[in-house]
Amino acid sequence: MRPVTLCFSGLDPSGGAGLQADIESISALGGHAAVIATALTVQDSQRVYDFQLTAPEFMREQALRVLADLPVACIKLGMLGSAAAARTVFESLHAFRHLPVVLDPVLSANSGGNLAQQDLRDALLAALPLTTIITPNSVEARLLAGCDDLTEAVARLTEVGAENIWLKGGHEPGDQLINRLYCKGELMLRSSLPRLEGEFHGSGCTLAAALAAGLASGMPLLAAVEQSQHFVTAALTKADRPRNQGQWLPRRIHSVWNANS
Amino acid sequence: MRPVTLCFSGLDPSGGAGLQADIESISALGGHAAVIATALTVQDSQRVYDFQLTAPEFMREQALRVLADLPVACIKLGMLGSAAAARTVFESLHAFRHLPVVLDPVLSANSGGNLAQQDLRDALLAALPLTTIITPNSVEARLLAGCDDLTEAVARLTEVGAENIWLKGGHEPGDQLINRLYCKGELMLRSSLPRLEGEFHGSGCTLAAALAAGLASGMPLLAAVEQSQHFVTAALTKADRPRNQGQWLPRRIHSVWNANS
Repeated sequence: MRPVTLCFSGLDPSGGAGLQADIESISALGGHAAVIATALTVQDSQRVYDFQLTAPEFMREQALRVLADLPVACIKLGMLGSAAAARTVFESLHAFRHLPVVLDPVLSANSGGNLAQQDLRDALLAALPLTTIITPNSVEARLLAGCDDLTEAVARLTEVGAENIWLKGGHEPGDQLINRLYCKGELMLRSSLPRLEGEFHGSGCTLAAALAAGLASGMPLLAAVEQSQHFVTAALTKADRPRNQGQWLPRRIHSVWNANS
Repeated sequence: MRPVTLCFSGLDPSGGAGLQADIESISALGGHAAVIATALTVQDSQRVYDFQLTAPEFMREQALRVLADLPVACIKLGMLGSAAAARTVFESLHAFRHLPVVLDPVLSANSGGNLAQQDLRDALLAALPLTTIITPNSVEARLLAGCDDLTEAVARLTEVGAENIWLKGGHEPGDQLINRLYCKGELMLRSSLPRLEGEFHGSGCTLAAALAAGLASGMPLLAAVEQSQHFVTAALTKADRPRNQGQWLPRRIHSVWNANS
């Protein structure tokens, strides 16, 4: 069967980000996504208005059924929403520690105040040794590590157990968008791309999901990282902007279906 | 932008049915899905173990934000889960009555006892005049119409407002699977296919979503119906069966992504 990636993500009803990014990216790359919604959100292409977190126990039930039934080959974690959810998810995966885990450490989309944010950060930090690779943007890397200097942040995250870090530079200034892959603290890849104009909805989810799809299919880490970079660039280059306002929605599926195929 | 279909469906974490069928089918056909989860379910490729319905008011909030932001061209309704949800969804769509509506009248997946089921049936019946086309299987057509004879059922559903009925024959006996399209009660299309072996998870969702994608792109009804039939046949023919047990999972995305494309 197609390589299965089990994903934990929020649901974005505008279809730019979250579990839809997972489903589209993973299926576009030949895999099958099994998706657990960590939250339902009220959002459009412009902003998040409201959200409801899924009860951690209900996510555990879903995860255990899927893991028992499908030949899951990779785990992809996006927005988890709360420290309790993060702890429950990582506990549920305990018997599946042989599987690669891609963690996109989403911190900012979750409100609930600084204390809840701090708890979630602590839960993610504690889980770093269980990850194969994490995909923070520079803002998340600084928040997770608790320091402003990015080189220092990478060193600290490596020290607490993040073996591989695919650090996204989209929030840093400059004409070029620079992503960096660190393995055991060493810079292994530096990818420099012309910055696209506009804001994109779900680019981070798309990148992490494409990376997970690559690992699920058995690709080596570096090849999966490079594929994810190419994939997200293609999806953003072909993005649509609804009614010429708000953020662009990535186009992850490029097939034109042929009724005679 | 890609033609947008707003979908209301349950979330199946095994990825065979529900909103994942919507997202994959619609994107495979060149559209964009905007998805509202009517329920989260605990299920695998074999059965449904548990579910949580989304509060109708929360669905309304999501729908209104998406409708205001995205150029929605079609509405696709799958599992709604309760009479209250069905009524709220149809009320939310009131200002968008010019849009085509595809209703897959899912009754059986929702437990909650006979009374709740009866209420949901009544709510769907009351909404039939608001639909462009409904896609019941023969079991659902009989339940909705309240009679055993299918010809009689079609006549009754037409009478209460279902102008177009794409009646699926997969639950009827015979080597051939026969689907029939009725327009204003007249048989307009009879599609006969060899029956595939095995049970498929999400074939009905896939058909209705593909139909909605066709209508969203401006296809005439008959062409969209025929495309949906071809699309679901292709998806089932290429389905995977996890670990050789349970139901087959349709394969709706056939593109092999090319990093150099």
